[in-house]
Amino acid sequence: MDTITVPAPADFHVHLRQGDFAALIAKHVRKGGFKLAYVMPNLKPPIANTDQALFYKAQLESIDPTVQYLMTLYLSPELTPDEIWKAKAAGIVGVKSYPRGVTTNSDGGIESYEAYYPVFAAMQEAGLVLNLHGEVPSNAASNTCVLNAEHAFLPHLRALHAAFPRLRIVLEHATSRAAVECVRSLGATVACTITAHHLALTADDWAGQSWHFCKPVAKFPDDRAALQEVIREGHPRFFLGSDSAPHPPHTKATAAPDHPCAAGVYTSPILLPLVAHLLESFGALDRLEGFVSSHGRTFYGFPIAEGEHGVVLRKTPGKVVEEKFIDGEQSVIPFWAGREIGWEIVEN
Amino acid sequence: MDTITVPAPADFHVHLRQGDFAALIAKHVRKGGFKLAYVMPNLKPPIANTDQALFYKAQLESIDPTVQYLMTLYLSPELTPDEIWKAKAAGIVGVKSYPRGVTTNSDGGIESYEAYYPVFAAMQEAGLVLNLHGEVPSNAASNTCVLNAEHAFLPHLRALHAAFPRLRIVLEHATSRAAVECVRSLGATVACTITAHHLALTADDWAGQSWHFCKPVAKFPDDRAALQEVIREGHPRFFLGSDSAPHPPHTKATAAPDHPCAAGVYTSPILLPLVAHLLESFGALDRLEGFVSSHGRTFYGFPIAEGEHGVVLRKTPGKVVEEKFIDGEQSVIPFWAGREIGWEIVEN
Repeated sequence: MDTITVPAPADFHVHLRQGDFAALIAKHVRKGGFKLAYVMPNLKPPIANTDQALFYKAQLESIDPTVQYLMTLYLSPELTPDEIWKAKAAGIVGVKSYPRGVTTNSDGGIESYEAYYPVFAAMQEAGLVLNLHGEVPSNAASNTCVLNAEHAFLPHLRALHAAFPRLRIVLEHATSRAAVECVRSLGATVACTITAHHLALTADDWAGQSWHFCKPVAKFPDDRAALQEVIREGHPRFFLGSDSAPHPPHTKATAAPDHPCAAGVYTSPILLPLVAHLLESFGALDRLEGFVSSHGRTFYGFPIAEGEHGVVLRKTPGKVVEEKFIDGEQSVIPFWAGREIGWEIVEN
Repeated sequence: MDTITVPAPADFHVHLRQGDFAALIAKHVRKGGFKLAYVMPNLKPPIANTDQALFYKAQLESIDPTVQYLMTLYLSPELTPDEIWKAKAAGIVGVKSYPRGVTTNSDGGIESYEAYYPVFAAMQEAGLVLNLHGEVPSNAASNTCVLNAEHAFLPHLRALHAAFPRLRIVLEHATSRAAVECVRSLGATVACTITAHHLALTADDWAGQSWHFCKPVAKFPDDRAALQEVIREGHPRFFLGSDSAPHPPHTKATAAPDHPCAAGVYTSPILLPLVAHLLESFGALDRLEGFVSSHGRTFYGFPIAEGEHGVVLRKTPGKVVEEKFIDGEQSVIPFWAGREIGWEIVEN
């Protein structure tokens, strides 16, 4: 087939940044074929309450008003059950939890979940979604490092689901077979996002390649296969969350001897063509609509609007990803820069 | 104790490069406290025969004649049993095997060992040592990537030892508990080198940190612990091979979106103080002499010469590693640049 029409693609995990960088980045949601962006709150300072989230939403709408922004709060001690109800009334959709120190702007992340049980109880009643960065901090004493930080998190996911069975929980950017099997084994209130880049990368690809370094890191070939398999199967609780995470090029390209480069892979401006390319590569192109649109929309309760036009992709052999996107002094280099994707958006 | 005298430190795995870069690098063997260097043959082109090895040795001696250079050949189809005997007569000590494509200048590496059995038989008779880069190439079909490439190699080590029980074999730069246990389980003709940097690093340290990227990659905390334990135990078949591998700074510090940075960690100019610091950190300072001198010398048959002066280290709290070493247009940045080591060489 040479064209595909995808109804209402939705990216259920994306970083849109702030200030001048946001002015470049936020436009790429639409460019990549998406009209719904589930926006991460890890700004500096984090989006910790309803007022901040609404202010941020207004900023994003001023950049591109044609995208539907679903806002989230950053889980921190500042968050109270009262604030959850306030957030609900303001249309905020979820709360994102970052374990302390594991990724970009997570210094204020959580160390233990039990202190947040009153907040989770309020979220369960209000219908807010809990979004989990599913990694525990490294700890040599327990043999935990970036390679098994996700695996070590899964008992926390099980415990949270057991304690709050009606709370909708999303394990974000799963990277391992263990994570896929864990989510599969849990109830209908637990879902899982998968990024585009984790469908392409393994540990070999970020070894010495800072542009492919993100958290959680890509793992073994068999882990990548598990992500591909659950998409090919069409499992309704697994859907796209790109975790598209832009950084200024010098923070990715240049390494000092004493600290890591920025963690993140940037896919927003090429997202829908890239996902089509990848799904096609492992025989799952027929699952594209479910993976990028209906599964996530159903889980979150944002169904496709009546009469909404779809995004049309055309197969374009030889189509190459742009090397760089520039807006004034801001620039960003996408995943797969200069590589062939072979699909392009012809109606958006 | 404030000073330690180490008799005749010997580095049984080091990369000294060629041309102008070698002029900078080779002097660092002595600077780092070592008078014996077991020299890797992965130049461009590789050191494939006796004549090339002797020519290279003469080049190194012209840079620093005070170091004893033990030379090796690169295992390739060019190598014959006759050449092994010629190498033996010329004083060449070992043959290095690189699986194809797994590290710096390994494009001519081996794909299968059975074709080399006549060469190994000649080495066994002549008394040459087989040095193994113990990783298999990545292969998604068998779930092999940089994270388990060493583990997947261990059956090859067992098979080689079974086929040539009198051939001395060294598994180079072991990084995992599995590798340590494998070598431990084999006979007296099988030894193992351990680098300084693998005593310090885990996967967390090369994730997004190109300066710490080397092959084999550092693994889990428990793997690092296994390397430390076998040194603390004083096992005589485990000894230092630094795998010190310099690269021009721009090849380590700058990453393009489409290929990895150079693989290698550079420890030569700080090696003995660094090893003392690390062994002290895990309670093995009393094993320093065995690890950096007598174990390797005994295995290889290069005992400490009568009356040779030792190298004296002094504990110097606050001693910091230099940021950069420069010679004309050549420069190199060492491991732990700007970090505190706390030991320095006072008599060399």
